[in-house]
Amino acid sequence: MTMSKPSTQAAHPLTLIPGPVEFTDEVLAAMATPSQSHVSPQFVEVFGDALALLRQLFLNTDKRAQTFAIAGAGTLGWDFVAANLIEPGEDALVLHTGYFADSLADCIATYGGKPTQLKAPIGDIVPLDAIEAELKAKKYKVVTITHVDTSTGVLSDIKSIAALVRAVSPETLVIVDGVCSVGVEEIRFDDWDLDLVLTAPQKAIGVPAGLSIFIASGRALDVFRARKAPPASYYASLAKWLPIMQNYEAKKPSYFSTPPVQNIHALLASLKQILAVPLADRFAAHARMSDRIKSTIGSYGLKQVAAREGYQANGMTAVYLPDGVALPDLLPRIAKRGIVLAGGLHKEIATKYFRIGHMGVSVTDEDREDFDKALAAIKESLAETGYAV
Amino acid sequence: MTMSKPSTQAAHPLTLIPGPVEFTDEVLAAMATPSQSHVSPQFVEVFGDALALLRQLFLNTDKRAQTFAIAGAGTLGWDFVAANLIEPGEDALVLHTGYFADSLADCIATYGGKPTQLKAPIGDIVPLDAIEAELKAKKYKVVTITHVDTSTGVLSDIKSIAALVRAVSPETLVIVDGVCSVGVEEIRFDDWDLDLVLTAPQKAIGVPAGLSIFIASGRALDVFRARKAPPASYYASLAKWLPIMQNYEAKKPSYFSTPPVQNIHALLASLKQILAVPLADRFAAHARMSDRIKSTIGSYGLKQVAAREGYQANGMTAVYLPDGVALPDLLPRIAKRGIVLAGGLHKEIATKYFRIGHMGVSVTDEDREDFDKALAAIKESLAETGYAV
Repeated sequence: MTMSKPSTQAAHPLTLIPGPVEFTDEVLAAMATPSQSHVSPQFVEVFGDALALLRQLFLNTDKRAQTFAIAGAGTLGWDFVAANLIEPGEDALVLHTGYFADSLADCIATYGGKPTQLKAPIGDIVPLDAIEAELKAKKYKVVTITHVDTSTGVLSDIKSIAALVRAVSPETLVIVDGVCSVGVEEIRFDDWDLDLVLTAPQKAIGVPAGLSIFIASGRALDVFRARKAPPASYYASLAKWLPIMQNYEAKKPSYFSTPPVQNIHALLASLKQILAVPLADRFAAHARMSDRIKSTIGSYGLKQVAAREGYQANGMTAVYLPDGVALPDLLPRIAKRGIVLAGGLHKEIATKYFRIGHMGVSVTDEDREDFDKALAAIKESLAETGYAV
Repeated sequence: MTMSKPSTQAAHPLTLIPGPVEFTDEVLAAMATPSQSHVSPQFVEVFGDALALLRQLFLNTDKRAQTFAIAGAGTLGWDFVAANLIEPGEDALVLHTGYFADSLADCIATYGGKPTQLKAPIGDIVPLDAIEAELKAKKYKVVTITHVDTSTGVLSDIKSIAALVRAVSPETLVIVDGVCSVGVEEIRFDDWDLDLVLTAPQKAIGVPAGLSIFIASGRALDVFRARKAPPASYYASLAKWLPIMQNYEAKKPSYFSTPPVQNIHALLASLKQILAVPLADRFAAHARMSDRIKSTIGSYGLKQVAAREGYQANGMTAVYLPDGVALPDLLPRIAKRGIVLAGGLHKEIATKYFRIGHMGVSVTDEDREDFDKALAAIKESLAETGYAV
């Protein structure tokens, strides 16, 4: 794991939310890279390397696929899906395990696609047989899965869902919202035959927000190329960005819109740190920390929103408040102890739970003791509210 | 102007292109701000202040208008215009003074608008009488003006064009692409009765690329609110972002998509530096430097792409190569002297000219002597090619 050493960062509260996470000194130093032309040989090298290392993060070697890193946000990845891979009037099956599926369905409808949501009860997954029945009932252009829904902490089994889609409806594209999963949950892009995985940098990739990151399969790009209608977005157009990414990865400068030079430097810095250790070790470290946090929280008598064992995120935990304790009673007490946690996000239960993010350097560098501090702060703060921990 | 002091930045070639420009130490330090929750009181304060200072940069006090700063790029601003202010089938008059008008027209057509281009000869402006005739011939929903076309260095007279539009077609929205102008050219948003000015941070605002920045007038927002069709983009939807910006400016956290925390810190740092000096002084300093560079280049016997006096950008100069000298002969020689300039961008003449950016700290901090070095490097390099300077 990352070697511990005195940090160069100013003292600051620990941000232990489901993104943005704490960043390494090297990543922050890269954010402060002095100005560089976006078409300079120096930057072309950095951008090309970052795109190539992203392939490793997605466990991709098939060059028909392409990685992308574009100024924007995780949300922008949905526009890329909805405006390029779905044509007006085509059906999209949206598997709903929380807040973010509603937004994704909204995005798909914006560009003329027809989203059908399969909704799990709050905290649960969508069962495979329900997905199978729906895929047999109708021809879907895409199935979308929120790998980890940041509003609930539910972890979907994308490997099994992808295998089901291939068996039942082989032409349907498998789209994964990996915003809170890439870098912490196992994702084997090639082996699992996925078509597009999108993410954001400020979660388990450990880079400040400001990028839309995704990988599209050869199959997805062929579907895009066979589109009848032109892409329905200008900035989020694969037609505009595909040649740019291909060129940079081939170490050739190229221009559509100025890339965020410093954010790309930071992405490369973090990918180098992440990939210096086998990914399996990284995933295992996150799983161990997640187990520890979940069992400690359980020992305090608190329940998780993601109730089904085996389907709980390894990078975050959503925790129901005990009866009689409100968010404004608890989170400020934890904040006073230097730990920033997040409130609820799922509209139906937003005031009833809080969220802990456990991704990145706070997990991999155990010498930081970030979660010793956080778990102690939670326990002490609960006790202060009068709850018997 | 900015006080000179030893820079904390690593030695690096001077980036003197029409964006990205050189950044101040304070801006780069802000890019390396340790992690902060996007809804923390600390960040809400920073984002709110940045949105308020953007109003000052646009010389706006009318609160019916709203400033925006969103993860993305200058290009994304066009999507905001095309997907929110123009409905399918409506006409847009695009004033063409270079490469960027073609892209903007492409963007408008993507969302169903009907762009009509009024094209100036390369290096020239679109005359007012041609605009007037077109506005009288057809009802246009918007007129778009590239304030400074980065491909040619042509400066359009947006004040006169806006006044003409108000006189001839008062309901038509006046849209300004200010990517290479905001922070260097005079723009009086309220006084000139403009409707939307969009820009990017890596030019005269002096912040690394990674943001779409714009201000929309009360009139523009009313036109948006009266839209019959929903916004044609999800990520670039004013419906999504307007309440977010209003909330942050009122110092209330709000969530649609995670903002780029570090880039917003850098934006605030730069706006504080810019606004510490009267804007008129800043514009005058850029005009003086521009005059110096243009006259020096002229004294070398070189001609500008932007040929018409009074319509030449103050933040960049596009320079035709002398006969017999090719870009690959010249720019690498200049680069060897530690100065990065840009090649051509306008497709019809791309190999025939180069571009110098003169914006931001390289201009306002004369003690840096960036342009003494740059002009000397150009002269020496021209001489090396055999051209008699």
